[in-house]
Amino acid sequence: MGKGGKSEGSNGQEQNMAAWLVAVNTLKIQPFNLPTLGPYDARVRMKAVGICGSDVHYLKTLRCADFVVKEPMVIGHECAGVIEEVGSEVKDLVPGDRVALEPGISCWKCTQCKEGRYNLCPDMKFFATPPVHGSLANQVVHPADLCFKLPDNVSLEEGAMCEPLSVGVHACRRANIGPETNVLVMGAGPIGLVTMLAARAFGAPRIVIVDVEDSRLSVAKKLGADEIIKVTTNIQDVAGEVELIHKAMGGGVDVSFDCAGFNKTMTTALTATRAGGKVCLVGMGHHEMTVPLTPAAAREVDVVGIFRYKNTWPLCLEFLRSGKIDVKPLITHRYGFSQKEVEEAFETSAGGGNAIKVMFNL
Amino acid sequence: MGKGGKSEGSNGQEQNMAAWLVAVNTLKIQPFNLPTLGPYDARVRMKAVGICGSDVHYLKTLRCADFVVKEPMVIGHECAGVIEEVGSEVKDLVPGDRVALEPGISCWKCTQCKEGRYNLCPDMKFFATPPVHGSLANQVVHPADLCFKLPDNVSLEEGAMCEPLSVGVHACRRANIGPETNVLVMGAGPIGLVTMLAARAFGAPRIVIVDVEDSRLSVAKKLGADEIIKVTTNIQDVAGEVELIHKAMGGGVDVSFDCAGFNKTMTTALTATRAGGKVCLVGMGHHEMTVPLTPAAAREVDVVGIFRYKNTWPLCLEFLRSGKIDVKPLITHRYGFSQKEVEEAFETSAGGGNAIKVMFNL
Amino acid sequence: MGKGGKSEGSNGQEQNMAAWLVAVNTLKIQPFNLPTLGPYDARVRMKAVGICGSDVHYLKTLRCADFVVKEPMVIGHECAGVIEEVGSEVKDLVPGDRVALEPGISCWKCTQCKEGRYNLCPDMKFFATPPVHGSLANQVVHPADLCFKLPDNVSLEEGAMCEPLSVGVHACRRANIGPETNVLVMGAGPIGLVTMLAARAFGAPRIVIVDVEDSRLSVAKKLGADEIIKVTTNIQDVAGEVELIHKAMGGGVDVSFDCAGFNKTMTTALTATRAGGKVCLVGMGHHEMTVPLTPAAAREVDVVGIFRYKNTWPLCLEFLRSGKIDVKPLITHRYGFSQKEVEEAFETSAGGGNAIKVMFNL
Amino acid sequence: MGKGGKSEGSNGQEQNMAAWLVAVNTLKIQPFNLPTLGPYDARVRMKAVGICGSDVHYLKTLRCADFVVKEPMVIGHECAGVIEEVGSEVKDLVPGDRVALEPGISCWKCTQCKEGRYNLCPDMKFFATPPVHGSLANQVVHPADLCFKLPDNVSLEEGAMCEPLSVGVHACRRANIGPETNVLVMGAGPIGLVTMLAARAFGAPRIVIVDVEDSRLSVAKKLGADEIIKVTTNIQDVAGEVELIHKAMGGGVDVSFDCAGFNKTMTTALTATRAGGKVCLVGMGHHEMTVPLTPAAAREVDVVGIFRYKNTWPLCLEFLRSGKIDVKPLITHRYGFSQKEVEEAFETSAGGGNAIKVMFNL
Repeated sequence: MGKGGKSEGSNGQEQNMAAWLVAVNTLKIQPFNLPTLGPYDARVRMKAVGICGSDVHYLKTLRCADFVVKEPMVIGHECAGVIEEVGSEVKDLVPGDRVALEPGISCWKCTQCKEGRYNLCPDMKFFATPPVHGSLANQVVHPADLCFKLPDNVSLEEGAMCEPLSVGVHACRRANIGPETNVLVMGAGPIGLVTMLAARAFGAPRIVIVDVEDSRLSVAKKLGADEIIKVTTNIQDVAGEVELIHKAMGGGVDVSFDCAGFNKTMTTALTATRAGGKVCLVGMGHHEMTVPLTPAAAREVDVVGIFRYKNTWPLCLEFLRSGKIDVKPLITHRYGFSQKEVEEAFETSAGGGNAIKVMFNL
Repeated sequence: MGKGGKSEGSNGQEQNMAAWLVAVNTLKIQPFNLPTLGPYDARVRMKAVGICGSDVHYLKTLRCADFVVKEPMVIGHECAGVIEEVGSEVKDLVPGDRVALEPGISCWKCTQCKEGRYNLCPDMKFFATPPVHGSLANQVVHPADLCFKLPDNVSLEEGAMCEPLSVGVHACRRANIGPETNVLVMGAGPIGLVTMLAARAFGAPRIVIVDVEDSRLSVAKKLGADEIIKVTTNIQDVAGEVELIHKAMGGGVDVSFDCAGFNKTMTTALTATRAGGKVCLVGMGHHEMTVPLTPAAAREVDVVGIFRYKNTWPLCLEFLRSGKIDVKPLITHRYGFSQKEVEEAFETSAGGGNAIKVMFNL
Repeated sequence: MGKGGKSEGSNGQEQNMAAWLVAVNTLKIQPFNLPTLGPYDARVRMKAVGICGSDVHYLKTLRCADFVVKEPMVIGHECAGVIEEVGSEVKDLVPGDRVALEPGISCWKCTQCKEGRYNLCPDMKFFATPPVHGSLANQVVHPADLCFKLPDNVSLEEGAMCEPLSVGVHACRRANIGPETNVLVMGAGPIGLVTMLAARAFGAPRIVIVDVEDSRLSVAKKLGADEIIKVTTNIQDVAGEVELIHKAMGGGVDVSFDCAGFNKTMTTALTATRAGGKVCLVGMGHHEMTVPLTPAAAREVDVVGIFRYKNTWPLCLEFLRSGKIDVKPLITHRYGFSQKEVEEAFETSAGGGNAIKVMFNL
Repeated sequence: MGKGGKSEGSNGQEQNMAAWLVAVNTLKIQPFNLPTLGPYDARVRMKAVGICGSDVHYLKTLRCADFVVKEPMVIGHECAGVIEEVGSEVKDLVPGDRVALEPGISCWKCTQCKEGRYNLCPDMKFFATPPVHGSLANQVVHPADLCFKLPDNVSLEEGAMCEPLSVGVHACRRANIGPETNVLVMGAGPIGLVTMLAARAFGAPRIVIVDVEDSRLSVAKKLGADEIIKVTTNIQDVAGEVELIHKAMGGGVDVSFDCAGFNKTMTTALTATRAGGKVCLVGMGHHEMTVPLTPAAAREVDVVGIFRYKNTWPLCLEFLRSGKIDVKPLITHRYGFSQKEVEEAFETSAGGGNAIKVMFNL
């Protein structure tokens, strides 16, 4: 086994290695045969792969939402790398190009795809969503139109960050954030932070962010929140906390993002948002929710959900290129691609410590 | 006391009488002094006034949602009548014109009003919403621009029906109903029925309606539902009922209207609606709701609420004129305007019988 | 040569024949080799093919808009037929199914495709738009997801009519037609008529249609126009004609469709439309236009254009199934698929007579 | 006559003076009787009044668009001042408050007003649009809800600049500008500049601006244009200039603002904009236009117009407060309020020199 997880096969050629989820809490670096390169595909050498909360969830439980890992699966889906080879019909990429990868391949035959909501495609094939393999590997083969060239001033790690950032960007698009939208963010974890950064980049003039932990709020403040508010997990405190939110906002909340997704965070969001505003439910804490939906509806506060993202990579890269968003402070830990480091990296990501984003450098 | 609640004052002039809510379960026909006619106002002799569920709620509890009746208040807000007199600046109405009245007077100074969402005006003055008096009276004074002339083939009773119909029309607008929207309606009460009629008029090609009572479903079927489904109040039955709904629809549900507003109806609506569809919460059964909001959000099923309506009278009158909607079958009971009949009418409306809309003819 | 253009090759198998545009004013029925059936394709035996104005234009000039016919090309793109064979991955079609064909194959890799505006795909491959062959042939091979099953009560001819009807449907969607939209249609040719039919199906309460010929107006009236107005081609008459239009409409024009596309029709449309309304430019009479664009813009009358259509077949078939639209009266002439009849059919379509839609039955 | 145009009447009280347009090219400072203060009104002492192109147009021709000055009229509508007195029902303003004034009073009774497009109100009463008097006066009486409090860090001159800036803001809203919209601005005059500033504040990542004069382009560059392009007035040069624009943009133009409104600028805008993009016509150079509208429509390039603005003051003030927009460099000339200075100021504004915005300090 070579360093960095690379290996040579018996024929002297490099053997492609990947991090396989083989059982609960068990990841193994093992050979991963690449599929044939199709005419519209690219073969990409991975250089930066981030760990997502869903990766950790799969590792610990072999499932996430309705998806269940039934056979060993390569993990990882936040990634960027360098083009090694392109198919015969690929015109705008050449070997050596640095690219960020959008992880989902949709069918383009169903109504959702044809109507421009390809993220809702029922036949989506998505990195590390069973039974589809992920991208924590030396190399992957992927459709070239899902490989987006990085601007010169955007690093490969930043490229990999397009994936979590896309969640925030998609949420902002669905909630129609602009220079007239005062924003409340419930939860200052990784998703709360990228949503906050995206909302700022979409022009939100004032952003208040709420969490239960001082350390997370402190990061949010450094990353640009106008006001931070520490709250409790006690549902009885909602009324008082809404008052604090309104005071901190200096007016009404036009859009709330619930990036936690618990009864209390959603109750706060629904209550704090002005008549005619929107609550965007991003986090997935509780499955069933007990919340004051009726009084919110009676003030025409709409609840919009999100599923992943669509058409976000070009905008993310523009935000990174222009400096409107800086994702580098979110990358708190870095690991190489060896069996030991992979295990450590996932432990770090899962641990309750101060990790925001854990990144592999391959 | 003259017939129909009319009366002459000591000066020989007609005295204006109205139905006052004076205590729980107590309505009294008593004199009601009209305000001075302003330059943009009209004085209207009421001819048809319907009873709304909220009227009944006020009668029984002196409250509705956050509003509390603290002093005697004239009841009623679904109404139509004949112009008696108009103010000096009113150009397009003359005495004798038959008109339907939109009950809410908004401020036109706040952001909501200026941005076209006047139904959300925090300073709204609305018939029979305390402390504003209603319209179950011989005459009322009302802004002329809220008095809409009836087409020749639309009766005064139909004019009064514009108010409940407006709820359905506003819900259809908010949910963006059109010829490509397959619609599910939860609940076949008066609001479910007007929503169904409005959805059809907006072009919905297929409408399935659900209720717990056969008699209501039978009315819905007569009024044009494509399919009716009888359901239970048992939350355990949701999965099976969703299957029945999908089968009856012959495909996905694009928009669900929850015209009941209970945990179970909302759970059914959220579950039955296709990815990317909408649930419009119209009914107000439960205040706090326990529903699977997260999985719905993760399929980008949005929840939109409604509060009353805006700009609906012209469209309602066009629907009635053209025959796209026939509200006459909804009017099941009629009463005159005497103390005894007012009491009976409210009993009928409150009773669990087969009353849909109870109408006063003044 | 067999009847109806069919023929057997030297191996005794049927030889596929097609109508080739080989030179100006010259169509020849000649063999047409079908491409290999891909896993997602269908092979379809054509049964009904309509002649479009663009087909006639290509025949007479070998060009249309920016497209030029440089090599012999099979003509025809309004079509329906019966499935003969499907590729290995096609799940929802079987031989014998009756289908209408959407003629354009987009790339699904470009931004327009991914954002849901696939009709604007720069790499679109479209029947009978050079250098892509059309569908006036015994058989064609086409992507299965562009073959839409006909409801039982919709004929193959009606299926072929989905193509022109799609233009009207797409125009109505772009102009946001609904039950509150009073519509003006400039021009009662085939496109004006399908636009009128579509506007009605989208709920337009009142439609006024304008043309220079009595015979066309008479057809429009039979097909459901509320009012018809005969106009001149003299630009001096615009003011008077706008007055007639307003009188016929009984109020403002919310949306005007210019289905002719000349200076005068567009001037009339821009002038007649109310402040805040829309003009949808459908016809393509003049390339450069001299029109009062500034005063229209200063009333916020927007001009929206259309290019073909997208996602229209399911809705067209629903309109035909439900009877909301009846396209049968538009089919005025029918021909078989022999050399002689093909020539006659195109002469009929090109002639200034009373032909609306000329249809081949293969 | 006191200095600064103030004067005392015979009763020893200050006499309100205003700049009256009395004849072509003739402005006179004369007494201006204020109307009675209504309960919802404010009396405002004017402090900063800018000169608009329309003011100059009225001065030179006594007309603008369809409006004709038939009797002496007070000029001016870009203004800010200090509250002197408020009516009995005004709750959120007190004497001494610094405010910017939105100049148009709409009726709030018509369909346009009620649907949120009050700028299209047919009964609009607008400063210095005949027969309504303007605001170049010591004091004016105006509805309090149209007087917007200035943030502490926004000057009265900046407050007066909200009016021209509102044109740019409204144009950006109508064209839906955001962080994904690459913008072309045709014309670097005052309106082109405010549109450019607004587009940047709405997040436009790349803005190319075009003009025929180097000096104006140089200002545009200083104010933040990414690229400037000098063009000719020769219509033959369009193709080459579009090529330059595309090169400067480094890609497609999503939205073009034509802030000149001539045949050539509109032709360039229509040609340069990508399929599916928008052209917003802001300038009003030519009334009738000869432009390639058909090929633009066939690429679904929509043309949207604007008329004044609505609900823009709060956003303008937020842009000024936050520093997202700096309008101070636009104010190139300042004058006092004497007969001589008023005349000079208008000459400066009308002169072809380097004046952008000429401002009165009262």
